[in-house]
Amino acid sequence: MTRVKQTLTLLAGAGLASMALTGAAFAQEEPFTQTPEETAFIFNTLLFLLGGILVMWMAAGFAMLEAGMVRTKNVAMQCTKNISLFAIAGIMYYLVGYNLMYAGVDGGWIGSLSLWSPDDSAALAEAGATFGNGGGYAASSDWFFQMVFVATAASIVSGTLAERIKLWPFLIFTVVLTGFIYPIQGAWQWGGGWLSEMGFSDFAGSTIVHSVGGWAALVGAIILGARHGKYGANGEINPMPGSSMPLATLGTFILWLGWFGFNGASQLALGTGADAVAVSNIFANTTMAAAGGVVAAMVLTQLLYTKVDLTMALNGALAGLVSITAEPLTPGIGWSLIIGGLGGALVVVAVPLLDKLKIDDVVGAIPVHLLAGIWGTMAVPITNSGTSFAVQAIGVASIGAFVIVASLAFWLALRFTIGLRCSEEDEVLGLDKAEIGLEAYPEFGTGSKAY
Amino acid sequence: MTRVKQTLTLLAGAGLASMALTGAAFAQEEPFTQTPEETAFIFNTLLFLLGGILVMWMAAGFAMLEAGMVRTKNVAMQCTKNISLFAIAGIMYYLVGYNLMYAGVDGGWIGSLSLWSPDDSAALAEAGATFGNGGGYAASSDWFFQMVFVATAASIVSGTLAERIKLWPFLIFTVVLTGFIYPIQGAWQWGGGWLSEMGFSDFAGSTIVHSVGGWAALVGAIILGARHGKYGANGEINPMPGSSMPLATLGTFILWLGWFGFNGASQLALGTGADAVAVSNIFANTTMAAAGGVVAAMVLTQLLYTKVDLTMALNGALAGLVSITAEPLTPGIGWSLIIGGLGGALVVVAVPLLDKLKIDDVVGAIPVHLLAGIWGTMAVPITNSGTSFAVQAIGVASIGAFVIVASLAFWLALRFTIGLRCSEEDEVLGLDKAEIGLEAYPEFGTGSKAY
Amino acid sequence: MTRVKQTLTLLAGAGLASMALTGAAFAQEEPFTQTPEETAFIFNTLLFLLGGILVMWMAAGFAMLEAGMVRTKNVAMQCTKNISLFAIAGIMYYLVGYNLMYAGVDGGWIGSLSLWSPDDSAALAEAGATFGNGGGYAASSDWFFQMVFVATAASIVSGTLAERIKLWPFLIFTVVLTGFIYPIQGAWQWGGGWLSEMGFSDFAGSTIVHSVGGWAALVGAIILGARHGKYGANGEINPMPGSSMPLATLGTFILWLGWFGFNGASQLALGTGADAVAVSNIFANTTMAAAGGVVAAMVLTQLLYTKVDLTMALNGALAGLVSITAEPLTPGIGWSLIIGGLGGALVVVAVPLLDKLKIDDVVGAIPVHLLAGIWGTMAVPITNSGTSFAVQAIGVASIGAFVIVASLAFWLALRFTIGLRCSEEDEVLGLDKAEIGLEAYPEFGTGSKAY
Repeated sequence: MTRVKQTLTLLAGAGLASMALTGAAFAQEEPFTQTPEETAFIFNTLLFLLGGILVMWMAAGFAMLEAGMVRTKNVAMQCTKNISLFAIAGIMYYLVGYNLMYAGVDGGWIGSLSLWSPDDSAALAEAGATFGNGGGYAASSDWFFQMVFVATAASIVSGTLAERIKLWPFLIFTVVLTGFIYPIQGAWQWGGGWLSEMGFSDFAGSTIVHSVGGWAALVGAIILGARHGKYGANGEINPMPGSSMPLATLGTFILWLGWFGFNGASQLALGTGADAVAVSNIFANTTMAAAGGVVAAMVLTQLLYTKVDLTMALNGALAGLVSITAEPLTPGIGWSLIIGGLGGALVVVAVPLLDKLKIDDVVGAIPVHLLAGIWGTMAVPITNSGTSFAVQAIGVASIGAFVIVASLAFWLALRFTIGLRCSEEDEVLGLDKAEIGLEAYPEFGTGSKAY
Repeated sequence: MTRVKQTLTLLAGAGLASMALTGAAFAQEEPFTQTPEETAFIFNTLLFLLGGILVMWMAAGFAMLEAGMVRTKNVAMQCTKNISLFAIAGIMYYLVGYNLMYAGVDGGWIGSLSLWSPDDSAALAEAGATFGNGGGYAASSDWFFQMVFVATAASIVSGTLAERIKLWPFLIFTVVLTGFIYPIQGAWQWGGGWLSEMGFSDFAGSTIVHSVGGWAALVGAIILGARHGKYGANGEINPMPGSSMPLATLGTFILWLGWFGFNGASQLALGTGADAVAVSNIFANTTMAAAGGVVAAMVLTQLLYTKVDLTMALNGALAGLVSITAEPLTPGIGWSLIIGGLGGALVVVAVPLLDKLKIDDVVGAIPVHLLAGIWGTMAVPITNSGTSFAVQAIGVASIGAFVIVASLAFWLALRFTIGLRCSEEDEVLGLDKAEIGLEAYPEFGTGSKAY
Repeated sequence: MTRVKQTLTLLAGAGLASMALTGAAFAQEEPFTQTPEETAFIFNTLLFLLGGILVMWMAAGFAMLEAGMVRTKNVAMQCTKNISLFAIAGIMYYLVGYNLMYAGVDGGWIGSLSLWSPDDSAALAEAGATFGNGGGYAASSDWFFQMVFVATAASIVSGTLAERIKLWPFLIFTVVLTGFIYPIQGAWQWGGGWLSEMGFSDFAGSTIVHSVGGWAALVGAIILGARHGKYGANGEINPMPGSSMPLATLGTFILWLGWFGFNGASQLALGTGADAVAVSNIFANTTMAAAGGVVAAMVLTQLLYTKVDLTMALNGALAGLVSITAEPLTPGIGWSLIIGGLGGALVVVAVPLLDKLKIDDVVGAIPVHLLAGIWGTMAVPITNSGTSFAVQAIGVASIGAFVIVASLAFWLALRFTIGLRCSEEDEVLGLDKAEIGLEAYPEFGTGSKAY
């Protein structure tokens, strides 16, 4: 391909017009053609690539959100977990995940166990083949887009279990989640399995991505137990404030941005004007749901606590986004505002409830991803007449049951083999020093406060 | 849409070629077609969506810039203001702003008071309608792109008034600014109102976005007064350095990046080769103006103060960008460098002037957005022969007068009702503790320095 | 262009369908056409613009990576260097660099010394010209894309030499590097010079961008010497830990994201389905190489040091990315994992080696960009049968020799004229106070630790 670069840029350097305006000089070459199918193929592929990089960027958003929400002494650990879970997700989805989710599911429960490869793309490229009937796209662009989704599910787990889980058990669980748990339940719906045949609808993954991460996080949090000192003997709840609000805010903005790819590119096609309209409506609905979540969380915290809580506003945005993810297309923009706003309100109500249950969720991922994910999935029939509450409930329940059982098994297996939780001394010292061997901010905060 | 996902990804999983190479198997389907109008419709829509997410990302840029430029004790407040103003801007632009700006202005002063809705898009999508004469695009993509612009105007106000304005009065002003003030003056020009008929030219909003935010900020700063201790009794000016230079730098890079969407997508079309050339020229000119602003500010601060001032370099980049925004297309790349460089120089000169006038602009938004915005608007006729200095001056003055009067009225109304400014104790304590109820960096800096 | 905005958005405000569904009302206009060449021209241009903004964003990534990896007292200096080197790179590439690299090289060693201008684009736009034979693109989009690459090379140098080089000598070197050194060697290959005629292959710049920055950094580091106190008299190596791990992590995520533009858009065309397939394969391969680098670095540091080192994981990701840059297209996804993994392992091995040689590389840029760049370039023939190890070695060696000699000359010239290195007092005080006149974090860390 270097030669193409040379030729083109050489010509460009010599003045583009020499190429463009004297196209006749290239007359020996065959006339350039591009069928409507090929144009659509390029647009569809481009949508996957653009959506994919936006969702990839969400990995940075989770990293910043979590780095901001944990205490100084565990910040480097969260950074390590986030960069490595993204790497692992990619590798596992190549090794087993993609084909387990998409290859030959055919109304069933599971795909095939095999390496993914973009087999026919090269052949297709060389053969000047036809490019599908307007719905074609490059195989690798689809793999890339699906892969970043599985990383999102893993990111959700990371935040809830922060500040007390050891690094390697978490990474091993990530291997299982991204290689097996996520793809298997994904096969039921997006892979064309039994749930999709039943009529379940989850456009971009309120259930398939967000609640899956949320269930795995919830089970993990229960098995792992709360951080030392979080819940006092007399029922008091000790706040352990996050170390950096601007990083948490940055993370939220990154996630909001990335969600345009998450939902928008889940239209899966940009090859027709109708697709372009659909993607545009999804963009408008998605941002409006996030806005609703922010405003609902702010108003509610002002009313309940007489102060606006920034972390609630941030989680309100995310809950709004999760809520609209199951159906970002059929609601009008007004309904999107309502669905997202209710998602944001849900978080404000649920966070203290979890604390009452002594389930220690460091970043609020369970309310945001699990509860808002369920809400969003159940809200689909409000605006999408092709769905039913009953089938939506079956989808939520069956995927929930599977993920609970599977993650319970693996969390317990890890707990009784290599162990899940760091020692109390390590927890007090901070995981950065104990496990990563460096401090996140060596020159200022060192977590010496008596949390 | 889930079914499409299933079908396509199923096929992809089974090997794309099975679909692509045997397109004949789908022979029952109608042959896929895509008219040139539809292709252009997709390109135009894509430009709006890409531009929209880049400008949306600028909201994060402002958040980081402001979080870095205020003192530790007010950082969470700035984060809260920035995430909530973006939410409010979206909601207000849906509720009233868009149609007030664009619906039926027709040479006049104002559009209509009504909810925005992407009414006909769905019909269009289903009807397989024609897609305009090469200039069509999805209605929602345009709404999304215009909406993020109004958020930018609100962001500008946030920075100037930092560290002393109360949260809710600021948010109420944001409601008014994004729902009414911005859309009304926008109607005069971009909505096709009287100013556009007169021949005023403001390609991407040096005046319509940046100076509008700047005027509202200036009026607010005067009414609000300076931070306690900023200006001493004997005329001394006390520096109150920002808490995090890397966050301010990150914010500036985000804004520079986002500006490619701001200016580039203001071409409003990508459906022809000529549009693609125009957008490309805009990209080159935009980055060159920013580069000129950086270098001018650095050289000037080195000469004036014998040291390079990072905050001036950052504001120089932004001033260069604001300066080229009124006309990023017609200048050659050389002129862009000069226009941006003069914008950067303007900032270096204007910042101390504002301090002499005891106008306390925490982040330098008035020089960057108002003064460079005026400069950029007046510089249009240098390279765009279709414009005149007189008409440009009428545009600058009329929009300035309107925003001054309107924002003055609302700022005063807020001041004499719920009040604008926090108490002196709250200001000393910091707005994070006083209004947000948490600290931005609870484990290190707590603003205890005697600023 | 404002009028277009008015017209279109006015119509949209009034309901898009009025335009779209009654296209016949525009019947006086000529029918809209778009030839396949024009469609391809738009796609190709769009690829350059998208790739360009992604690579531009890498400048922010380097800024954050470096801000996180230096000590508090030098953070504002790194921010200043990174924003200004990006500005300088743009200006120099316009003034001399682009044409020196691309204009009339024609198998030779150097282009022409002249200002770049997108001369014919406007004419082309107005003339309704043909748009090349499927490979055309807007001249400015190509300039923009090539320009951000030169900025990347300059960013690499910035990190290695941190904490002891004075600002202006660094900036003057940046002028020379971006205006002359980079373009001249670039002309040999991408400009169509002698190396490309010989059959050297460097798809996206493992050698031409990364090793060039790496060589210049290595020579600079040797001439400049290590930071005071880094290497003790008895051979001990004193760690000087970076000030902010989350910023370093953010920088790495930004670079990973930007690399999709760096490698993907180096396909240089998106106008055919085959190009779309190629870009997609590049995306998949690129992310897989980064994932391999992360995992290799983590496993290796765990085995060697019994702890995972976050900075090694981050540099492992970057080394994986650099390694795949010379050939991101022909390796399958499995080979990409291996090539990237070996790149990551290389870093873990090389960092202590450099310390043994007392070459003080603050951020690890020499292993990441120089060594992995060489590795990646030499690995091309493994999967690309059109290349040979011998010719790859000639390319690596000749470009290396040129950059070593040229940068040595300029570093020495600077050293013996205005001087390169700050005084020992300034180094102890920190360059922020000494040269920039402000502190990066005035309210918390002030570098008072005895490093």
